[in-house]
Amino acid sequence: MVQENHSKVPIPTLGRLATYLRVLNELQMLEVSTVSSAEIEQQTGINAAQFRKDLSYFGEFGKPGVGYSVSELQQSIAKILKLDRRQAVLLVGAGNLGSALVGYQGMAEHRMELMGIFDSNPSKIGTMLGTLRVQSIHCLVEVNMKLNARIAILAVPAQVAQSVSEILVEAGVRAILNFAPIPLRLPENVAVRNVSFMQELAVLSYQAAEEVSQLSEFESF
Amino acid sequence: MVQENHSKVPIPTLGRLATYLRVLNELQMLEVSTVSSAEIEQQTGINAAQFRKDLSYFGEFGKPGVGYSVSELQQSIAKILKLDRRQAVLLVGAGNLGSALVGYQGMAEHRMELMGIFDSNPSKIGTMLGTLRVQSIHCLVEVNMKLNARIAILAVPAQVAQSVSEILVEAGVRAILNFAPIPLRLPENVAVRNVSFMQELAVLSYQAAEEVSQLSEFESF
Repeated sequence: MVQENHSKVPIPTLGRLATYLRVLNELQMLEVSTVSSAEIEQQTGINAAQFRKDLSYFGEFGKPGVGYSVSELQQSIAKILKLDRRQAVLLVGAGNLGSALVGYQGMAEHRMELMGIFDSNPSKIGTMLGTLRVQSIHCLVEVNMKLNARIAILAVPAQVAQSVSEILVEAGVRAILNFAPIPLRLPENVAVRNVSFMQELAVLSYQAAEEVSQLSEFESF
Repeated sequence: MVQENHSKVPIPTLGRLATYLRVLNELQMLEVSTVSSAEIEQQTGINAAQFRKDLSYFGEFGKPGVGYSVSELQQSIAKILKLDRRQAVLLVGAGNLGSALVGYQGMAEHRMELMGIFDSNPSKIGTMLGTLRVQSIHCLVEVNMKLNARIAILAVPAQVAQSVSEILVEAGVRAILNFAPIPLRLPENVAVRNVSFMQELAVLSYQAAEEVSQLSEFESF
């Protein structure tokens, strides 16, 4: 299972680039023309030195004393992340989570376009979600012959996540955002990013209690 | 900002414990009484040796040749993660994402109970989401004097995430699951876990394209 070895650029750097891009998009809408690393720090909470280091993986940006051209930096980062072109995205799972993702503005802002929604539940197939009709999972391979999406969002129950992910790979998908709380076993040329709410909440549950016990220890002195 | 330094137990171990717990809950419902580390590997995709190592942080579990008692291990892990008791959770943000989280089964399975939902949008305040009425963000501190929730889910736009998180801290919350795509600047005694769809999707966009360029290089030989 390949997740973090796709490139020499650290994954956290790529994640932060997405954050810079969001801020640059906003500045562009406000018709701001230049920005300093200090302003980036203020807007994102990410250290100015970290920002400069993240950019250094991809060449030279900005001018001393002037700062960064918002439009140039926006275009450069979009190009690095391949978000400078329209990309088709598939969604499997038309439940609560899937529906939330359909309404998620961030995707459109980054030119990711949800082009197909699939489910195995007969009561969902044929219904509309946003502007798309939910299709049967059995049509996915055929439908993606036309769409050619390489990115998919997997929002299905844990029990079926592995088998559905294999259908996605068969359909040509090479990057999966997995919301099911199990790791997927897929060929090495498929990138997977896992998001598990319950895992995150369990970690927080542990940490919130740690905090309590630290406080009580403190109070007992 | 403290995120990963709350304890000597590695965060990934805590996340995996949540996965084991989910599988153990399922086995218990199926009235299975013992389980081997090989079966855990089969069910979770997590290596049996990793499973044993994760448990070793917390003491001795299982018997050689017999395996693990499902109910004992379930109780032990729930206790480690403090998921053996009912915990109140707050949700701020009653948009698409917040609504999806209200319907999320995993929380109830782990005895996390959503006790309050808050929003600043007048068109949302007073409406029902699941069994709860959405309340004004301005009531949060007062409401949580009774609820005493220490865990909150933050599903609000980036622009207001920092200020809302400060209200949560004022209300006594010590662990936040942050879905806004910006880092929060909070006191050290507040644990934050960040989940950013767009960051994950941007990383996948980069990786999916990496794969294409690797393939084209290969094809040109």
